[in-house]
Amino acid sequence: MENYKQFLIFFILALAVGFVSIVFVLTWVLYYREGLGWDGGAAEFNWHPLLMVIGFIFLQGIAIVVYRLPWTWRCSKQMMKFIHAGLNVLAFILAVISVVAVFDFHNAKNIPNMYSLHSWVGLAAVILYPTQIVMGIAVYLIPATPVYVRAALMPVHIYSGLFIFTSVIATALMGFTEKLIFGLKSPAYKESPPEAILVNVLGLLIAAFGGLVLWIATRPSWKRPREEITQTVSNNSTNPEDTKTGTALTTRTHLDLETRRRNGKAEESG
Amino acid sequence: MENYKQFLIFFILALAVGFVSIVFVLTWVLYYREGLGWDGGAAEFNWHPLLMVIGFIFLQGIAIVVYRLPWTWRCSKQMMKFIHAGLNVLAFILAVISVVAVFDFHNAKNIPNMYSLHSWVGLAAVILYPTQIVMGIAVYLIPATPVYVRAALMPVHIYSGLFIFTSVIATALMGFTEKLIFGLKSPAYKESPPEAILVNVLGLLIAAFGGLVLWIATRPSWKRPREEITQTVSNNSTNPEDTKTGTALTTRTHLDLETRRRNGKAEESG
Repeated sequence: MENYKQFLIFFILALAVGFVSIVFVLTWVLYYREGLGWDGGAAEFNWHPLLMVIGFIFLQGIAIVVYRLPWTWRCSKQMMKFIHAGLNVLAFILAVISVVAVFDFHNAKNIPNMYSLHSWVGLAAVILYPTQIVMGIAVYLIPATPVYVRAALMPVHIYSGLFIFTSVIATALMGFTEKLIFGLKSPAYKESPPEAILVNVLGLLIAAFGGLVLWIATRPSWKRPREEITQTVSNNSTNPEDTKTGTALTTRTHLDLETRRRNGKAEESG
Repeated sequence: MENYKQFLIFFILALAVGFVSIVFVLTWVLYYREGLGWDGGAAEFNWHPLLMVIGFIFLQGIAIVVYRLPWTWRCSKQMMKFIHAGLNVLAFILAVISVVAVFDFHNAKNIPNMYSLHSWVGLAAVILYPTQIVMGIAVYLIPATPVYVRAALMPVHIYSGLFIFTSVIATALMGFTEKLIFGLKSPAYKESPPEAILVNVLGLLIAAFGGLVLWIATRPSWKRPREEITQTVSNNSTNPEDTKTGTALTTRTHLDLETRRRNGKAEESG
């Protein structure tokens, strides 16, 4: 891998910022707020920011960059697809529980649902995300899907994945804003009590985590090499026809890697 | 240009969504709010959302995709760089006026400045944006900068431009949330009065505008062709050495375009 050290720095930084974000949100709900519970009260609401940060932000971010980890390149592409899909499904389950928590809380307190911009953008993300997962499974995990369909849809799959991830982060920033305005009364948000500073910093950390994930995901030279390499390297057949194909694939792969190195992003067809 | 019609649809859609956003923000401040003025009151505050949407969002978005317009490919790259830089400088000036308006308003009303997450992320964007402009001018408009420096910094320039643009949109969504909570009292935001619906829709429109700009900016096949094409086409020299260079450049350009078409994004060194 080109710039392996640089990749490692960015990846460890993303992990670190992600972990610190989770520590911050835990501190917020456990120390400054009412802790965690499932009683329709504030403690139930608190699952909302916690599970969103852990699932919809951190896990989704990791799912996005999971193909980039060089130590997974020895695993089959198929297995990595299952890990990618699995992490996304797990993130979605946490997001759904998190949404249930906030609806329960609103209903118990007679607060209307779905009136805020936070809830509108958030609902859009919660609808688009499983659509993306189902489309991804149908196109890239069902063997019957033709390669040209996979290739044609890859730019859309990548773009919509990154778009949903970014929207979730924007939604979180709106959610923090709402909760700080409604939750802090004396001292109020505008008086900048420690809780306000903590959550503002949490917002910056989440924006930084998003920025790191997007940087890692969009570096062409950090992409997993094409499947052909593995096929070629593991090609021990003595059939002359196979050897010929193997050589052609090796040449093509070398050209691909060279082209990618010089000119930028190569999108794989999965 | 490949998929010229598709490009045109996305570009016209982005323009339309951008214009409708401006109409929405104008309706908000002129019809639902106190109009525009410069008296330290609410009418001065109203310049803040208006100029941010026109400048920091719409103009910045157009500045990002200006190289993609096929009808500008006959203009020199240098001229397009000036237009790109000029639009960004104009957007920055509007953003600064917009920030002054909100500081004036806060100071007149004794509301603290810079306490909210909206203001923190917004200030970061307002600091990073001129840094990006100055770096861009130093690297891509000052002729002395070596080509290898331009090439090496291009991925950073592109990424940070898109990151700042996205942060500005996230900041706007937080700003709308704040203003709707503070500004709507009876009926309150949670009662979903028409103003709340209007601004929520404005938030969705701005998110959609951002999504369209990011889609256009990240399609490899919609990039402006490399400068060499123009140089080669206009190469009328009869000097055999020049002709040789011209042919080499043509071949390289054709290879570049073919490679880009097949494999994805090629980043130009400006």
